[in-house]
Amino acid sequence: MAKERLVFLSPVDPPGAWRGAFEKAAPDVDFFVSRGEMPSPETIDWAVVWRPPAGLLARLPRLRCVFSLGAGVDHILIDPDFPRHVPLCRVVDPYLTSGMSEYVVLHVIGHQRNLLRNIADQAAARWSPFLPRQADETRVGILGLGELGLDAARKLRPFGYHLAGWSASRKTEPGVESFAGRAELGAFLARTDILVCLLPLTADTQGILNAAAFAALPRGAAVINAARGGHLVEADLLAALDSGHISGATLDVFETEPLPATSPLWRHPRVLITPHIASMADPRTTAVAMADSMARLRRGEPPLHQVDPAKGY
Amino acid sequence: MAKERLVFLSPVDPPGAWRGAFEKAAPDVDFFVSRGEMPSPETIDWAVVWRPPAGLLARLPRLRCVFSLGAGVDHILIDPDFPRHVPLCRVVDPYLTSGMSEYVVLHVIGHQRNLLRNIADQAAARWSPFLPRQADETRVGILGLGELGLDAARKLRPFGYHLAGWSASRKTEPGVESFAGRAELGAFLARTDILVCLLPLTADTQGILNAAAFAALPRGAAVINAARGGHLVEADLLAALDSGHISGATLDVFETEPLPATSPLWRHPRVLITPHIASMADPRTTAVAMADSMARLRRGEPPLHQVDPAKGY
Repeated sequence: MAKERLVFLSPVDPPGAWRGAFEKAAPDVDFFVSRGEMPSPETIDWAVVWRPPAGLLARLPRLRCVFSLGAGVDHILIDPDFPRHVPLCRVVDPYLTSGMSEYVVLHVIGHQRNLLRNIADQAAARWSPFLPRQADETRVGILGLGELGLDAARKLRPFGYHLAGWSASRKTEPGVESFAGRAELGAFLARTDILVCLLPLTADTQGILNAAAFAALPRGAAVINAARGGHLVEADLLAALDSGHISGATLDVFETEPLPATSPLWRHPRVLITPHIASMADPRTTAVAMADSMARLRRGEPPLHQVDPAKGY
Repeated sequence: MAKERLVFLSPVDPPGAWRGAFEKAAPDVDFFVSRGEMPSPETIDWAVVWRPPAGLLARLPRLRCVFSLGAGVDHILIDPDFPRHVPLCRVVDPYLTSGMSEYVVLHVIGHQRNLLRNIADQAAARWSPFLPRQADETRVGILGLGELGLDAARKLRPFGYHLAGWSASRKTEPGVESFAGRAELGAFLARTDILVCLLPLTADTQGILNAAAFAALPRGAAVINAARGGHLVEADLLAALDSGHISGATLDVFETEPLPATSPLWRHPRVLITPHIASMADPRTTAVAMADSMARLRRGEPPLHQVDPAKGY
């Protein structure tokens, strides 16, 4: 019997590490990286993807499951031809959560202590000491209090920040003031010095980081977007930075990725750019979970962490 | 009766904030900033200092106490004419500790996740994703497990790092492997991926971050020095960075401060420079504690946080 075939398609994830992880986790499956390596479409059983080319998955007739390389599946469902009868799974991995919380703590402390000023001063060989703001004078607001947002809040709590979160429904988490629904978004933003976006991207949250939101933040606030490029209106952020109302931003995700070399964000002195690495599935643990789902499907059982394409999560 | 007089001498601390804090905490004392403002030497009762000019304190015959503006007093005892009969106090302030722990967590996560690569990639407008190292694959070693080192370890613990500390005497802190004394320094360094120096500067620790220490670290280790410039042999660090054995460094303190514009550290792509701001005494809380010590001395009691000049801490 011919070996099963898995195609791995991602413009961002390191293919070597994933090949090694699948050779260990699913040694009976042949692994193909990239469209160039891909054998004839009718022989593909499994697809592991990040932003797959539109229409491609619909042309794989034998496909038994599509695995997202992220916690979200918006990057897959954006393809109008996505074959909705094929099971679709997202990544649920402790390293996705821990990596995101590391990123959030790193950049929240960075804005509190004005790391961007340190970087600019160093580039100018300028020794310019200043008294950093205290954590207990700093209000951090997290957009999205799901698994990622709650873990980030718990990791931030020992530093003494004033914490709040905004979510669709009210949450009860010690030390985190909960704001819920559109009606409370303005009050949430008005009390936030460092805004962290960890929302899922849906029709409701598209463009939520816009001129109106920035105007609702206090003067001097900072913005961290580690969710999706679709949450942020980049032109509105640039305007708010240039007016001085927003003091700085850390961006991991962008309207267009890779961020075009022509984007003014690259060279803005008050913007720190990272290339969509805040939270990445670890090949070793994630390949094991995907291989487990493949085994379950062969036995006629549902895979792990399946997503409802109608809801998007 | 004439009012008591306090002189405040620091090339780095913001004098305005300190004047305001002392006007509140010690309204009965006249406050003089800088040598230029200072009245005749025989009228000075109190000195609050950072790196005071050599010989100056010895020429204040009425001096009742010298207050360091930092947690250490090495910058005062370096003066061979320091009047050792005058009580000397260091700062013990929750903000000194919390600020240092923020700095340590910020830069430990920064090295774990290769923030220096993000900064260099951004400067080149280069989109170059990579899988960050996991915290639970990263061994952090803290030189100095006093108040600062223990608090930093406790703030790092929730992220899952493998933690160890090195100190003069053995410590028992949950989740922190304790190494003690010169005999165990090599084993401590050999298991450390990110080295954090928080030691007091004494004859024993002068130059401890030298070529031998860097060679004892595993290849690719990173170094954070937030203690004193005297701990680090800068030429040895530059050699270890340029050989690739050390992957990066965050430096807050330097052999000469301000760091001279000619220093190659400023423009080294694997060095992050901050201008001695890791841990700064907060004027508001620290002035209150100093005023308390002044009141204790007037009552014939010992001041708070007095230092033994012979030991240096």
